Amino acid sequence: MALIVQKFGGSALANIARIKSVAQKIAATKKSGVDIVVVVSAMSDETDRLTKLARQISRKPPKRELDMLLTAGERQSIALLCIALAELGCDAISFTGSQVGIVTDENHTDARILKIKGDRLQQALKSGKIPVVAGFQGVSIGREITTLGRGGSDITAVALAARLGAKRCELYKDVCGVFSEDPKQFQDAKTIPAISYDEMSELSISGSQVLHPRACALGAKYNLNLVIKSILDRGEGTMIKQTRRLEKPLVRAITHAANLCRFTLIAVPQKDRCLSQAVSQLAQAKIPLVFFAHGVPVDHRFDLSFIIPEHAFKQAKQVLARIRVKLKAEKLVTQQNLGSVSLVGPGIGSDSKIIATLFNALQKVGVHTDAFSTAESKITCYFNQKYLKPAIALLLDRFGLVEKRKR
Amino acid sequence: MALIVQKFGGSALANIARIKSVAQKIAATKKSGVDIVVVVSAMSDETDRLTKLARQISRKPPKRELDMLLTAGERQSIALLCIALAELGCDAISFTGSQVGIVTDENHTDARILKIKGDRLQQALKSGKIPVVAGFQGVSIGREITTLGRGGSDITAVALAARLGAKRCELYKDVCGVFSEDPKQFQDAKTIPAISYDEMSELSISGSQVLHPRACALGAKYNLNLVIKSILDRGEGTMIKQTRRLEKPLVRAITHAANLCRFTLIAVPQKDRCLSQAVSQLAQAKIPLVFFAHGVPVDHRFDLSFIIPEHAFKQAKQVLARIRVKLKAEKLVTQQNLGSVSLVGPGIGSDSKIIATLFNALQKVGVHTDAFSTAESKITCYFNQKYLKPAIALLLDRFGLVEKRKR
Repeated sequence: MALIVQKFGGSALANIARIKSVAQKIAATKKSGVDIVVVVSAMSDETDRLTKLARQISRKPPKRELDMLLTAGERQSIALLCIALAELGCDAISFTGSQVGIVTDENHTDARILKIKGDRLQQALKSGKIPVVAGFQGVSIGREITTLGRGGSDITAVALAARLGAKRCELYKDVCGVFSEDPKQFQDAKTIPAISYDEMSELSISGSQVLHPRACALGAKYNLNLVIKSILDRGEGTMIKQTRRLEKPLVRAITHAANLCRFTLIAVPQKDRCLSQAVSQLAQAKIPLVFFAHGVPVDHRFDLSFIIPEHAFKQAKQVLARIRVKLKAEKLVTQQNLGSVSLVGPGIGSDSKIIATLFNALQKVGVHTDAFSTAESKITCYFNQKYLKPAIALLLDRFGLVEKRKR
Repeated sequence: MALIVQKFGGSALANIARIKSVAQKIAATKKSGVDIVVVVSAMSDETDRLTKLARQISRKPPKRELDMLLTAGERQSIALLCIALAELGCDAISFTGSQVGIVTDENHTDARILKIKGDRLQQALKSGKIPVVAGFQGVSIGREITTLGRGGSDITAVALAARLGAKRCELYKDVCGVFSEDPKQFQDAKTIPAISYDEMSELSISGSQVLHPRACALGAKYNLNLVIKSILDRGEGTMIKQTRRLEKPLVRAITHAANLCRFTLIAVPQKDRCLSQAVSQLAQAKIPLVFFAHGVPVDHRFDLSFIIPEHAFKQAKQVLARIRVKLKAEKLVTQQNLGSVSLVGPGIGSDSKIIATLFNALQKVGVHTDAFSTAESKITCYFNQKYLKPAIALLLDRFGLVEKRKR
């Protein structure tokens, strides 16, 4: 029998009424003649409630105890969902992360999965039951309770789907799929029916909160079909899967970032290791690098440019002032209030027509591009963030990424 | 180093402020130079909150899932208490019932402990840590999460104290010890400084909620010193321990029950098995028997009398009507609104002076005794419940069981 993994997030389980309707959804899927493994998060306010209790006692609670505390959250939702399923006559059985053998490293609050035993899951499936598994949590080899960090329940669901050879992993969220831009900010953004792992991964990394990059990477590794949809919506959602390269490169989605700043070291003498010295000193100071580039050498001197998040501006300035002295650069120039826009789509990074359309649109709204980078399936432009909104609106339109029914 | 087990109930952990003061208490005990194992219940309202959620979904939730749900309660308190202890610089480590290897049978919601592995506890103690253990919960051999039923956290504490050879097991409650009568109803009842397991057990069974009979029986079996006290009170509390029989029998406490009723089968013909037939039919109908007696035979006929809780009156009446026909008794007489008063103390059951004092006092307040029974360390009288209050007040005084400072 085909196996489907269904994962329900905290907002789908926010209260008893929603838990009951999730149970109905699961019962209907089971009735359609497939095996199901269910993965759940904590009820939406529960994690906050528990975290607040801990913070009332300590500003920096021990991570091991924080994991012990927070895992109480999913324990409640697995039990309540199984009670609701029993009420509908379904034979459901709840399992904690440690009961299904989700073995992780000992890195409390942000553990990585090492292996999944899953023998109890398979036993339960064999006897016709619906296993309901607590997401987000695992157990270390030393039998310590761990959690998987942000996006942890998605990671559990995708990892279980991979381990059990599921046909599909459905992730029920409070959005009805992956959008061509953030629908809260751009109301006519449309849902994307299908997207590749690479594109989804580019979207996740550039700020889309829909799916954690770790969950996406796991899906790609095991070539699993992932579906993102809402329990409240009848739409098909977004399918994330391995897609063949299309003949014609196509922009699938747009993503953006704000509050960036840029440092440029002017006229750095060309020497061995000058670049690696600069980058490794930034890394040592734990300053995240969003982008970096160097100019074409003139008279054995070249410019070095770094874009970083604005919150690190002050610290980066000190570090780069030291680097300037060391590398004997002529001067250090800074620039603030930068934003970025990225186009995401298979193979678009090398498509001159798309790049031309991009620049044409940016010019139209008055943008002066400060930096520019391309990857296999992503093109990013950096410019003054005051142009973000009009630029994105025009780009959504130019690349056909607006919902037709809303136009 | 001497080892002490300290158990804190739900009201001692009702909110963050109380959790912090429990942590201070534990830190102070640790500083005094002993090893401590801490056992905790769920925060006082948490079990109710979780139970209510389950009841909103189902009138009869599966017991396995109820156990999964409720064990989230102690999980929160062990973690929060460890965070509070860490904040005080104590090296504490939380453990669930399954992590310390409290192995039970599979009887969900009312499991019995089969064995305690305890290797992780001993490891933690050896490295100078304070283990904080979730009470009430265990794990079956089939790796199912179980709970120990009413009084479960006390049972965990006493069982761990026995397993680890603790010097003492301190149970912190919302009362400052065992009282000579219920202090809510009889304000001048006094705390008893010391009491034997047998007496405590008689008190528990006749309705005192302070300590569950299973915890008391475990203490007796392993000859453990149990202390019952309040975290808010500086008093010494009550020590439950093996005491030598005193020369002079002494009433230590009084306990009472109300809402009882009585059925009497008049003139039952004396035959083989007539008694056992009657009792086993009541047992089959699951009617709890508080007391039963039969009269002296006259003309090969005798009276049979049963006292049962009033809530079973209707059902018992039907069963006994059938029994009356079967046993060919002349008639069935019923009596309602009965109460009982029990005196508890070592060896008092055979002390005529105490029995005389009892009847003398009862007569003084106008009681007509309907039934009477004695055991090794308990004497019980049954009579109309309207006399309970004045009778107990007088008996507390006659047997010197009132707090002197309050007189």
